[in-house]
Amino acid sequence: MTSQIFSPDVEQVLDLAGIFVFALSGGLLAIRKNFDVFGIAVLAEATALGGGVLRDVLIGAIPPAAFTNLGYFVTPLVATLVVFFLHPEVARINLTVQTLDALGLGLFCVTGTAKAHDYGLGVVASIALGMLTAVGGGVIRDVLAMETPSLLRWDRSLYAVPSLVGSTLTALLISIDRLNTLTGSTAALLAFVFRMLALRYNWRAPRAWHRGSSNTGEH
Amino acid sequence: MTSQIFSPDVEQVLDLAGIFVFALSGGLLAIRKNFDVFGIAVLAEATALGGGVLRDVLIGAIPPAAFTNLGYFVTPLVATLVVFFLHPEVARINLTVQTLDALGLGLFCVTGTAKAHDYGLGVVASIALGMLTAVGGGVIRDVLAMETPSLLRWDRSLYAVPSLVGSTLTALLISIDRLNTLTGSTAALLAFVFRMLALRYNWRAPRAWHRGSSNTGEH
Amino acid sequence: MTSQIFSPDVEQVLDLAGIFVFALSGGLLAIRKNFDVFGIAVLAEATALGGGVLRDVLIGAIPPAAFTNLGYFVTPLVATLVVFFLHPEVARINLTVQTLDALGLGLFCVTGTAKAHDYGLGVVASIALGMLTAVGGGVIRDVLAMETPSLLRWDRSLYAVPSLVGSTLTALLISIDRLNTLTGSTAALLAFVFRMLALRYNWRAPRAWHRGSSNTGEH
Repeated sequence: MTSQIFSPDVEQVLDLAGIFVFALSGGLLAIRKNFDVFGIAVLAEATALGGGVLRDVLIGAIPPAAFTNLGYFVTPLVATLVVFFLHPEVARINLTVQTLDALGLGLFCVTGTAKAHDYGLGVVASIALGMLTAVGGGVIRDVLAMETPSLLRWDRSLYAVPSLVGSTLTALLISIDRLNTLTGSTAALLAFVFRMLALRYNWRAPRAWHRGSSNTGEH
Repeated sequence: MTSQIFSPDVEQVLDLAGIFVFALSGGLLAIRKNFDVFGIAVLAEATALGGGVLRDVLIGAIPPAAFTNLGYFVTPLVATLVVFFLHPEVARINLTVQTLDALGLGLFCVTGTAKAHDYGLGVVASIALGMLTAVGGGVIRDVLAMETPSLLRWDRSLYAVPSLVGSTLTALLISIDRLNTLTGSTAALLAFVFRMLALRYNWRAPRAWHRGSSNTGEH
Repeated sequence: MTSQIFSPDVEQVLDLAGIFVFALSGGLLAIRKNFDVFGIAVLAEATALGGGVLRDVLIGAIPPAAFTNLGYFVTPLVATLVVFFLHPEVARINLTVQTLDALGLGLFCVTGTAKAHDYGLGVVASIALGMLTAVGGGVIRDVLAMETPSLLRWDRSLYAVPSLVGSTLTALLISIDRLNTLTGSTAALLAFVFRMLALRYNWRAPRAWHRGSSNTGEH
């Protein structure tokens, strides 16, 4: 099992931390959309677990880990309580939340790629599924809240590319048989740093050529 | 098989009744959105079968029951014809439709929880999948019609909580080995009554604290 | 394997052609929505592969063909480059794109129905899954871009019906044991011609009865 990049205990702690911050982002959007407390919980669960569930369904890891590991399911409920009672405070520490979210992004693209490879998928498919693990929950979050997925929007800083970098590095490490705690952590850290730089300097991807400058946003 | 709460014939009749009323709610929304007759059929099918299909995919019951039981597939088409020709009449008996919908909610959260447990899932996961069976189709309906899922909205009466009650009771009954026709029906009835009371008295769940009273709905 | 309607090489070429044009339609919508280049790629992939992935998940063909055949995954990326650099030209040849899209529709409803039957599904379920293969990607495309699915809209020419015709013919051919290259191509061509006629003469399906003429579109 190459997917055991970290010791089981370490991986569990990292996973739960990533799930917690993804759930926070879902909960905060739910509050912004004026959903009730159950809507907050549903959006927190869907955001935190959606990417991993999609990956598990596509690779045949049934039932998905989200339904066999009680901690995965309960953590978003804790995040729901936190944002329910403390959302002005959580929103105020936006930079902290975004930093943690970037950590989750880095972690999940690495572990997602490794798990897909463990289930027999090829290099390119494993990269794609690693990215899906990292970004899928956010897309589900936005669709459920009737928002254009921020993953797709031009006016948001890069999110797909950092996960692409982390997933690709992981796939390369697997193919040269060098994925371990040190190299896996490095791949996750690079994706994390890339995302933080994109946030800090507001890096964006280009839109299609020939567009007039009058196109200043999405309609 | 604990999922055989009712005799097969009774379960089939109840299932088809639940599917029929869920399909009605999908069809009525499609008409309100001005979709054509095929759009009505697609939304009726997705609403009626979506929750069960999601559950079956997640627990590994492949192909999903919706694709192996012809009655499950044909019933939403009958509902499509009914709303197509009689939608003013169907809309006028809104209370009847909501009552039947509440019956479907109660039934599906119980049978969904039992089926998930049959496939080896744990208590909490079975509860979650029972709820998903009951409310998943409605979420798919709303997303396809580009409406904010009514499940999430503050200004709709409780829908998730009755299914949570029914699913939790079912999981408790399973864990003390007491799920049978009588107790299963009681759990479904309690969920149904809870939902009807929520409708009657417009019970709502709280939104997050500290919100000003100027927040009067979703934007 | 009845699904081998065409020789493997021919089927691969046809599949890639269909995937390419479906990806073009996703990419063009992404540009219209002002997404960045990664958003274009995501929408191209989701549109081109979404229907087949849904079918494969539902019939238990795991991992889906989209994740085992490298050409399936790379083709939408090529389409992304094409629309990124040439989108005014691509949009100008709209009739060509719609013609190719109709070819993809015809092809995928036939091969999707055959594959579902190969995996043991019944006649009606195979028809439904053939239609899902043909139209599923377009629905995912529209939902991700926050557009009402054009499949459902009254003010768009028929799309579901041609795929229903192609799928039903294929299922009939299978049930009389007469599905081969010639008959399969004929079923695909009939679906294609039907779709082209619907486009040319702007055929629409009826909306529900009793609607006043003041309903002139969807809001």
